[in-house]
Amino acid sequence: MAQERTAPVETLKVTADGAIESGDVLVVEEPMEIRVAWRSNGEQREKPISVTMRTPGDDFDLAAGFLFTEGLIRSGADIDGIREWGSPNVVRVALVDGATIDSAKLDRHFYTTSSCGVCGKTSIDAVRVIHARASRPAPRIARALVHRLPELLSANQAAFHSTGGLHGAAIVRPNGELLRIREDIGRHNAVDKAIGSLVREEPESLAGTILMVSSRASFELAQKAIVAGIGVLASVGAPSTLAVDAAREFGLTLLGFVRDGRFNVYAGAVE
Amino acid sequence: MAQERTAPVETLKVTADGAIESGDVLVVEEPMEIRVAWRSNGEQREKPISVTMRTPGDDFDLAAGFLFTEGLIRSGADIDGIREWGSPNVVRVALVDGATIDSAKLDRHFYTTSSCGVCGKTSIDAVRVIHARASRPAPRIARALVHRLPELLSANQAAFHSTGGLHGAAIVRPNGELLRIREDIGRHNAVDKAIGSLVREEPESLAGTILMVSSRASFELAQKAIVAGIGVLASVGAPSTLAVDAAREFGLTLLGFVRDGRFNVYAGAVE
Repeated sequence: MAQERTAPVETLKVTADGAIESGDVLVVEEPMEIRVAWRSNGEQREKPISVTMRTPGDDFDLAAGFLFTEGLIRSGADIDGIREWGSPNVVRVALVDGATIDSAKLDRHFYTTSSCGVCGKTSIDAVRVIHARASRPAPRIARALVHRLPELLSANQAAFHSTGGLHGAAIVRPNGELLRIREDIGRHNAVDKAIGSLVREEPESLAGTILMVSSRASFELAQKAIVAGIGVLASVGAPSTLAVDAAREFGLTLLGFVRDGRFNVYAGAVE
Repeated sequence: MAQERTAPVETLKVTADGAIESGDVLVVEEPMEIRVAWRSNGEQREKPISVTMRTPGDDFDLAAGFLFTEGLIRSGADIDGIREWGSPNVVRVALVDGATIDSAKLDRHFYTTSSCGVCGKTSIDAVRVIHARASRPAPRIARALVHRLPELLSANQAAFHSTGGLHGAAIVRPNGELLRIREDIGRHNAVDKAIGSLVREEPESLAGTILMVSSRASFELAQKAIVAGIGVLASVGAPSTLAVDAAREFGLTLLGFVRDGRFNVYAGAVE
């Protein structure tokens, strides 16, 4: 059963001139549970992994992207099948024989190190644990393309324009070709949907791409980009210190305040 | 050891006219672990409850606010003391004798109901479980005050102006008096810091106040406002459908798009 991404709601619109009852369109927010089923030592196992508040749509992409960018699966090849599980808000991912979920990674936020206990370094070390990928050459990206990214994102964000309530994430090739664009009430979900779609359909396209987001660039988004092998993270808003640290550590090009014909380079370089 | 909320970073600023190396100031993002210690059947127990990515500062308020708005403690009176625990990024909350943490509430997102499995109704039912408060009379709030809220918030958001990267949350009395204003890279943290400060220092002031946030109004923010007994949630951005549903269910007045001299009423009423 397909669920709507936006829904009408009655509202009272108030201005200095008065107030009128009016219809409005809001973005739908609903919980989604991700369950994973796998085989371990001949035994069938199954576990609820996460509940996220998301905007319905592209739910299988969201599940695949989340498992991949959190390092719980290594690639789309780990996935045997994805289906609804008794409810449109429960998605069950069955893994292929031999693939397992490393539950310890779910608890990695509790990792501590002797040097600092809990700090930014711990978080970056945790990415290294789930990253485990060879370093890549820095991608070459032209300034002119960066200047075009905001327009490319907003021109394709259909639901945002009707509700004002959605984050957008676009994955673009260095030559400017738009590969995927997804929206969600959660900025991390929009990113997981875009990445997950490629993980499922054309994983070879992910490496070295540009991820443009309508939001700020937090550590969490930098982590997802790094784990997915993306080359450039570009955000309309500001990056955080920890996003910059992680980007510099893992060779991710990080661009912030990409809007109004300007941008800042916080890690890596543009041409 | 006090940690900084903002930090300088080197950046390359690119415009159509060229590029210059320049210093920039970014908002600091660091993980913070919340641990809770309590006594159960004569035994001392202790448990890490959560790790959140936050901007340092007001960390004890954040811990108290999180535990309160998630329904893990009933009031500030449950708290015996709060202190750093071996690291500036670990905060330990000791509960008074007789107070306990209901760990089941941490897993409440996995609650399911027979009617829908996992859906918005489940989430609202979960708020009812942790809400458990008497319904309150709808607060009376004047239009003129609502129009003033965005300016009140931005005039007091010090770090946002320097970094562009912080969410703000202000708690205001219906008479317009500003009680608390807090900032954080996470909008839920900004809300928890503002609420937590009142929970610790003057809990009697919380009921019937107005919570103004610089972000969108998600279900999570509506939940926190409801559990805290706040009367009005006002957001600069759009609300979600589930935030509206929860607000209508629990008698929270919900105002969205509060900016530029206008706003929309999604639940409750203004005078």
